[in-house]
Amino acid sequence: MKYCADCGSPVELRLPQDDNRERHVCTVCNTIHYQNPKLIIGAIPEWEDGRILLCRRAIEPRSGLWTLPAGFMENGETTMQAAARETLEEANARIEVLDLYEMYNLPYINQVQLLYRARLLDLDFSPGVESLEVELFGENDIPWDTLAFRPICYTLKHYFDDRRKGDFRFRSADLEKPLPQTTVCG
Amino acid sequence: MKYCADCGSPVELRLPQDDNRERHVCTVCNTIHYQNPKLIIGAIPEWEDGRILLCRRAIEPRSGLWTLPAGFMENGETTMQAAARETLEEANARIEVLDLYEMYNLPYINQVQLLYRARLLDLDFSPGVESLEVELFGENDIPWDTLAFRPICYTLKHYFDDRRKGDFRFRSADLEKPLPQTTVCG
Repeated sequence: MKYCADCGSPVELRLPQDDNRERHVCTVCNTIHYQNPKLIIGAIPEWEDGRILLCRRAIEPRSGLWTLPAGFMENGETTMQAAARETLEEANARIEVLDLYEMYNLPYINQVQLLYRARLLDLDFSPGVESLEVELFGENDIPWDTLAFRPICYTLKHYFDDRRKGDFRFRSADLEKPLPQTTVCG
Repeated sequence: MKYCADCGSPVELRLPQDDNRERHVCTVCNTIHYQNPKLIIGAIPEWEDGRILLCRRAIEPRSGLWTLPAGFMENGETTMQAAARETLEEANARIEVLDLYEMYNLPYINQVQLLYRARLLDLDFSPGVESLEVELFGENDIPWDTLAFRPICYTLKHYFDDRRKGDFRFRSADLEKPLPQTTVCG
């Protein structure tokens, strides 16, 4: 951020009164421009035979790899609406959103990710503009080696474990910046 | 938002390619400026005798009314760190953050609020700059008529109910914009 979104003048990093961290403050109108973490919301759409709907990404980051439908929460919607909207946009698929299942903190990229359990309502799905393919996978067919993100891998592993036990419980975890040699599904 | 934070030129509302909602787009450098919901994180600090730490607000909105320590999550931190930091800033109090307890969606103000259970570690607390008073309240002494926000009222009611049953469970709810006659603790 270099310029004030309100008046177009230059901003500078400054410690506002009664604050304890530097903010982008306008040098003319003194507006403080806060920057805060963003929410990524996704779904684990399960068809009635137990298979899970995954999307192969058509966009960066991780283009070509598989993921659960997920994306940035928008203003004016709820977290459950975001999960349903992202599934519709990325997979042209309709779901009933169930309980919140996992939360991941990724402080090194200023993200909080929420994954919901969901029931896929019909088989009329197809790739949205951000997906190359959309497909149902059984537990034994999940493309573990070509998953796009760590939270997706961990969520799927927990999901199949909990489903076997018949006991889904909410979990949360904090992820540190991965080392260069870290694999997505370690 | 009127000006581009990257180059200072005017922005206009425009539908970017492959998008389905209007965004603020720079008329010169074409940067898309997304706006997303913010996370408010708070704690329910319980002292060993069962009393809960509340803060009386020194700032708007709802100046003069009682609340749990809570505030905007910052970049670079986790949700649990945010709960501890807000409690330290508003009440100069140290807590051990426990499980996530409640989540509220407030889509009409683009907020998601998370409240954590927490153990107050000592009695050396005092008002931070955003608080007028900080005080411990037993269940029968909670100032129900002068609480600042609906999620605070609901969270405290659920908390005391669940504590009586010895079974804290995660809950989430979506709140609509309150009608003018709505009371905080309806």
